[in-house]
This record gives sequence, structure tokens and C-alpha cells, in this order.
Amino acid sequence: MPSSPIRKLVPYAEAAKKKGVKVFHLNIGQPDIETPAKALDAVRHFDFKVLEYSHSAGNESYRRKLVSYYQQVGIEVNYNQIIITTGGSEAILFGFMSCLDAGDEVIIPEPFYANYNGFAVAADITVRPVTSYIDQQFALPAASEFEKAINARTRAIVICNPNNPTGYLYSREEMETLKKICLKYDLYLFADEAYREFCYGGNHFSAMNLEGMDQHVVLMDTISKRYSACGGRIGALVTRNQLVLDTAMKFAQARLSPPSFAQILGEAAIDLPADYFDNTKAEYLKRRNILVSRLNAMPGVYCPNPGGAFYAIARLPIDDADKFCQWLLESFQYHNQTVMLAPATGFYGTPGLGKNEVRLAYVLNGEALHTAMDCLSQALLEYPGKTKS
Amino acid sequence: MPSSPIRKLVPYAEAAKKKGVKVFHLNIGQPDIETPAKALDAVRHFDFKVLEYSHSAGNESYRRKLVSYYQQVGIEVNYNQIIITTGGSEAILFGFMSCLDAGDEVIIPEPFYANYNGFAVAADITVRPVTSYIDQQFALPAASEFEKAINARTRAIVICNPNNPTGYLYSREEMETLKKICLKYDLYLFADEAYREFCYGGNHFSAMNLEGMDQHVVLMDTISKRYSACGGRIGALVTRNQLVLDTAMKFAQARLSPPSFAQILGEAAIDLPADYFDNTKAEYLKRRNILVSRLNAMPGVYCPNPGGAFYAIARLPIDDADKFCQWLLESFQYHNQTVMLAPATGFYGTPGLGKNEVRLAYVLNGEALHTAMDCLSQALLEYPGKTKS
Repeated sequence: MPSSPIRKLVPYAEAAKKKGVKVFHLNIGQPDIETPAKALDAVRHFDFKVLEYSHSAGNESYRRKLVSYYQQVGIEVNYNQIIITTGGSEAILFGFMSCLDAGDEVIIPEPFYANYNGFAVAADITVRPVTSYIDQQFALPAASEFEKAINARTRAIVICNPNNPTGYLYSREEMETLKKICLKYDLYLFADEAYREFCYGGNHFSAMNLEGMDQHVVLMDTISKRYSACGGRIGALVTRNQLVLDTAMKFAQARLSPPSFAQILGEAAIDLPADYFDNTKAEYLKRRNILVSRLNAMPGVYCPNPGGAFYAIARLPIDDADKFCQWLLESFQYHNQTVMLAPATGFYGTPGLGKNEVRLAYVLNGEALHTAMDCLSQALLEYPGKTKS
Repeated sequence: MPSSPIRKLVPYAEAAKKKGVKVFHLNIGQPDIETPAKALDAVRHFDFKVLEYSHSAGNESYRRKLVSYYQQVGIEVNYNQIIITTGGSEAILFGFMSCLDAGDEVIIPEPFYANYNGFAVAADITVRPVTSYIDQQFALPAASEFEKAINARTRAIVICNPNNPTGYLYSREEMETLKKICLKYDLYLFADEAYREFCYGGNHFSAMNLEGMDQHVVLMDTISKRYSACGGRIGALVTRNQLVLDTAMKFAQARLSPPSFAQILGEAAIDLPADYFDNTKAEYLKRRNILVSRLNAMPGVYCPNPGGAFYAIARLPIDDADKFCQWLLESFQYHNQTVMLAPATGFYGTPGLGKNEVRLAYVLNGEALHTAMDCLSQALLEYPGKTKS
């Protein structure tokens, strides 16, 4: 079981804080955006006296309400096609376990969300990466690259759109390419759309709207980022494939039920005014622009402009991202401040890739981002392992 | 993946309710005891504005507080030996995944909590049952029976004490027997002590207090039953084995964090007055006495007197418990009421066992229990598949 690349530097960050150094966290997708007060209030005002198990698929009232949410974003499903999960994490786990047997393989464009690896280990399946490249802004690799990776054990492709960690927003054409591959080789398409609300470079095209793919597409969703409600641990597995639903329900029943309190929050959040996302999106867009322009202004740094989510991957003039990120916490400070980044190596399945890349989550406000970029800029001057840019 | 035997009759219960029949639920361990108001209030009064991820091991403040809870029940651990999980379910899953490889085997005295099967499938391991018998009140099978079941792939024994589904409370001597086996064959001992607080026939002896077993014992715990907080989905994996902790932490990091709201509840509950459990225990004891005496007064019925938890298994004069439980919901009513039971077949790993046994959860108040027993008594007169008692 691999360590989380996002969290493994935590002890160094804790040590830095104990020394009195302020650490700007760009390493983890924990937004600082306030959870909508109305949704939090709904939890404050719960009126039950017994904190009971909910339905294993989640409260029916919540699932019915989610149908209207999905309708608003252009996805037609009924409430029986939704299983509420304990975070998007459990949706991924249930998807893997329901559709794949031990020894089966999934293809994922790399760099990819590192926890897919953890769930693959848990489900005893193999992840086969297909490389996307920073110089192509992390666009979808060519169909021929996927075909090279397909073998007799391949059962699925995982696509995270907009992408974590790259921020890349896949176009409708790219999604259609995936559809062709999935139909030709009879593969599932696992679609992680956790960042659906945060698209800046164009419209989001959901895998659920790929025609003729009802039996192939499994949507893995979460309210964590949508409503800045990461700690609630509420997600959803959504599919029109009845057999997958039936199998996932068995796993859902084995773990009894998803958390009750945050289901109340999720249900209430659907009634937020339509402009709720406009405000958060505008805020993230502002932050993205700060981050990307600051990064590209540093000598030897390249950061493609991400079309969605709140992540970017930057290439830095350094020898080794793991060493650099640890050094930032252990040996560097600028005005008693430093920055925590995620080495990109942990997001690649192919060993050796991403050694001079880091992932940055722009989850801090503009001022904090500027200060973090000041730190990074200074660090790149001081770092002993810097390379010629 | 097997269906949950406890939940698979749900559609029949829903159909009965739609016909206007009142269903007494003795099929599931959902207590009707109110969640302590003080603990619920702590959730109502949370004061954060961003519902953030917690630490992957759970809030440090909660883990530190849990140390004092465990101290109160005579278990010495430090807060680094506790990983907060999403319900006891996840503690079981993390335990299995951290200690066992695909293809490994665990031995569990049967009948056993059916969801162990689900987690075994999820972890790709094999459950080997060792039979305990209703005529011996479901006491621990002899050491020789365990030894017969041990082979080269055996890695662990799972013990649920007090037991779900039998209600049997294992004695210190029985726990020492398990210790000898585990040390002799170098096995883990997974101890599910979800019902620790509810012992009527003697004191609880925790597996954590088996001397010389620190590297073997993994405690799987939960607040679900302790505080009637099933929907919170908060449990804990506790062990003094550092390697198991390190591995479990990787799984914990992959799923990011346990639910935030109910951690607040769990932490607040530790400050409940010392007599809190006295009251709930007295209530369960009263219910147990009603249930067991009513059952044993029915012709052809035998129910051993359980020493703990809030379950009992009864032998009924019927041909087939699955048919009978379905018939109760589909074809029977008494004064427009019926009762939902769990067929014991689903709790046995050995096919064919438990065919004339049912599990009853005494999670309803005395009056409701009496009415449910009236229904069952009448049903046993009318059931077409009744056998000579």
C-alpha cells in the first residue's frame, strides 16, 4: 500500500510550524471557501433524537433531491441510479470493487489523483498509466496510446474531468474519443467529476451524456469541493447500469450507511441560489490567474493554464521535486514563512516522471497566494538543487 | 459479493408497510434508545465555518479524549494507537486489509456478524467458520476445532465479544484459549467489541488486556451502539502493533478523513456522567428478560439467555428460516401487525446451518417487544411450514 504523496510531508510541515514558521498549504485540495451557511444551518437544526442508520443507499429524500441537482447540470438520472457514498473516495472504491475482479486492470491518464492507487490496492487491481505531457497542457493522450495499454485484463478507463492534479478540462471531442475506445474494447468508463462546478476554459461535458454509454459509464461524485464540505464525507456513485448498482448496493449494505449529518447538509445545499457557484467560481478564477501568472513569471518555471478544478502542475528548475518540497519545509523560510507543495512524482504511475514538477492547489485567497509565490520565487533562488533554467 | 442477510428482506417489509401493516423491526441492531442529548447538542453548536477534512486518523483532540474513555474501561492505550474510522465497518475493513493478503484466511466462530463476509470479499480473503452451537449457548468452540481449521494461509481469528448475533459473552478463560492459539500459530486476533458496554451475565474481558498479545490484537470499535449513534459512522481501529498502525494509516490517508460532524459527537459523549450506561444497560437487560422468557414460553422454541449485546438467536419449530421471515412480511399479519426477523442462515458460513434459527435484536421498548412476541407466537401457529416441536 503506497503512502499518500499529498500527506506524507505532513510531519515536516508540523515540525516547521513548531519552529514558528508559517506554512502556506498549496499541497492539499482543502478549500478555504466557507461552507454555505444555509447548508451548515440545516445540520444545526436537525430535529431527530436518535442518530439512526440511514438507508444504505442514502436518504431517499436526498437522492430524490439530487435528481434535480443533476438535472440542473444537464444530467438525467432517477433516484434509484444514485447511491450515496462516504465521500467520493467510497464511490471510487465501490466502482472499482463492483466492476473489477482481482488482477483486472484500469487505464488512467497520468499524472492522476494519487489515491486511485490506494483504492486499486484495496480492490487488488492494477493501474496502467498512459502518459499525458505538460508541454501539451496535459491533453488526453492519443487513442493509439490507450490501445497500446489495453490487454486481456483491461476492464476500465478512469477519467477525472476537470482533472486533479493537472486542472485540464477535457473537451467533448476527447470524451468522444474515450467513448469509442470503451465501446470497441467493452470497457467501463469511470468518470470522476468532483470539480464539475469549476470550469474556466469552457463548458463541462459529463461522461453521463455520452450517448450509447449507459452500460459503461460510472460517475463518481462528491459534495466535498462543490460546497467546500470536505469533512462531511458525502459523495455518490451514479450509473444507469443496473448490475453495477445492484453489486455496489451489496458493498453499501455491508458498511451499513453513509454518514447522516452531512446528508442533511448535502440535501440543503441543493436549494442554494443559482448564483452560488458564480461567486465561488469567480474567486477560483481570480486565484488561478494569480497563480499561473506568478509562476510563469519565475525564471525557468512553466505552468500550463488549467481549464478547471483548482489545481495546476508547474515545471520547476529543480533536480528533484520530493527533495525540494521537503527542503521547503525543513530548511527554508522567507520572512518566517514557507510553502507546502505536492511533488508531482506521486501522481505519476511511471517511475521517474514528474521529477521536476509540483502540484499546486489554489485554495488560498489572493493575498496568501501572492505571499506563497513570493516564498516560492525566493526558494528557487536559494535551493541547492536548482538546475539551469 | 453476498447480500446482507439483515437487509435483503427490506423490500418485503416496505411492501407490508405500503399495505398498512405495522412492522416491528427485530431484524437490525438499530437501537431506539435516544442518542445522548448532550452529545447531539455538541454537534448543534459546532462553530467552524469551513467543513474541512479532519486528520486522516481523526481529530487529535478526539483521539486524546478516547484514551481516557479506554482508561475508564480498563484498556491502556495512547492516542497514537487509535485511528478513527468511518464506523466500526471501516475498522474491520482496515484491519483485514492491513494484516492480510489476498487469498489469506481468517477463522471466525459461526454464527457470525454477516458483514464480515462482505469485508472479506472486499479484502479478497477467505472466511473459515468454526461452528458454535445453540445447545451449548454458543460458547467458544474447543481449541482443537480451531486447530483443525488452521492451514498455511490462516492469518487471524475474529472474535466479536459480546457476540453479534448470539449475544454470547466470552469469558476470560475463553479469551485465554484464543491467546494460546494465536501465539502458537502466530495469528492476529481481531477483536470486535462494539457491544462492550452491554454485558449482563458478567464482566467484559477485552482482548486488549491479554498479556503478551500486543503485536497480535487489533481492536475494532465503534460508538454506534455505545451511544446509540449508528448514523454518525464513527469507529476506531486500536492496536499496539506499530506496523499495523502504519499500514492502516495508508488506507486512512487514501480515503482522506473520517466524518467530521460525528467526531464532535463522539468526543462530547466521553464527558457523559458515569451512570449513563447504567440506565441504558438496565433498559436492555429488562428487554432481554422479556424477549428470552417470552420466546422460551412458546412451544418448540429455544433461546439461550445471552450474556451481552442486544441480540439473541432462537431455534423455532419451522422448516426454513428464510421462508418463514419472508412469509411473516408477505403473508402474515396479526391485528394488522407483524414482525421482521433476520434468518440465522445468513450468519453461518457453513451451508445448511441455522435453517431453523432466527436472530432477534431487542432494540424496541418492553411494550413493543411484548406485541412483537404476540405476533411471533401467533405466526408460529399459522405458518404452513411449521414442524413438530
